[in-house]
Amino acid sequence: MFTRAHPRFCSVCGHAVVRRVPQGDNRERDCCDHCGTIHYVNPRPVVGTIPVWRDRILLCRRAIEPRYGKWTLPAGFMEIGETTAEGALRETLEEAGARVELGPLYTMIDVPYVEQVHIFFRAQLLDLDFAPGAESLEVRLFDEREIPWDEIAFRTVAMTLRFYLEDRARGVFGMHTGAIAPLPPRPPAPTERSESG
Amino acid sequence: MFTRAHPRFCSVCGHAVVRRVPQGDNRERDCCDHCGTIHYVNPRPVVGTIPVWRDRILLCRRAIEPRYGKWTLPAGFMEIGETTAEGALRETLEEAGARVELGPLYTMIDVPYVEQVHIFFRAQLLDLDFAPGAESLEVRLFDEREIPWDEIAFRTVAMTLRFYLEDRARGVFGMHTGAIAPLPPRPPAPTERSESG
Repeated sequence: MFTRAHPRFCSVCGHAVVRRVPQGDNRERDCCDHCGTIHYVNPRPVVGTIPVWRDRILLCRRAIEPRYGKWTLPAGFMEIGETTAEGALRETLEEAGARVELGPLYTMIDVPYVEQVHIFFRAQLLDLDFAPGAESLEVRLFDEREIPWDEIAFRTVAMTLRFYLEDRARGVFGMHTGAIAPLPPRPPAPTERSESG
Repeated sequence: MFTRAHPRFCSVCGHAVVRRVPQGDNRERDCCDHCGTIHYVNPRPVVGTIPVWRDRILLCRRAIEPRYGKWTLPAGFMEIGETTAEGALRETLEEAGARVELGPLYTMIDVPYVEQVHIFFRAQLLDLDFAPGAESLEVRLFDEREIPWDEIAFRTVAMTLRFYLEDRARGVFGMHTGAIAPLPPRPPAPTERSESG
């Protein structure tokens, strides 16, 4: 879930690439002067669901980094050849073993500093026959008072849960957009501070 | 706007990659057995706007392939480091020289066969001081009867325009999702048909 390194070699011909602004462009790209390929890099969509059973919400405890052991909605990188809805269903099945009926698009939240767009759909669990997949330690349903706010893996997940609970309290579900800014840098440890002046 | 070729060389170390299912994964990836990098590929977001002045909609005539000479809403690939909204504003300025006040997210349309998700925001032109950018031949406002339906560059653009005009006629703007299937293959030309049986 982190930003990607710049390529050093051309994936088409294997020669070293050069970082420069191609003709007719206005930003630096990784260019191969051997075969002429320009290597564009774009943000990646992350797709998932808010699986609900009556008044409870399904969360997964992560069995992988980043945020091992933290709770999340089922979600992951969208794959080639699928739609956002298909990806959201696949991630829900893979991470939570859960079959859902997909509802409408619910949140689209930009996370520009990690080059991602997080997209969540509302979803209704079809049964309670769910189980953790390879990337989850545990999967369970939470009612509103039980949600482990201090143990939520990603801010887009916390934001989506807050929108959902607010909308449910009002009795009107909208579609929500947002953006997440980088966390402020942690203050340097005391020893570092004294060393740097 | 087409699908990407599989990498043949590792962009990290320059060695040849092998296409196989990595351990713990369930689909083929391009793997480098020299440095261990797995090269994931994901769909790309395309972001744009529906710029409106009173009852007219701004369209751009494309100066680039694909669909040279066809009309489109201003839109393009989302860049690293920006949000969907920032990308939509940037494309509107680059392709149409147009300054807009961005409105809400309006359509999110999957185009899985070209590995894209098209995202359009409603937008209000701030002035009529627009002009074609390097990727446009012409930029102009169209009222509903003038829209060149047979000359629209992309089906996601036509779909977005239809949603917009229907919503405007009803007086209620929603948020719309959809998916575009590949066009059916063109029937073979008569000579080809007679040759193949």
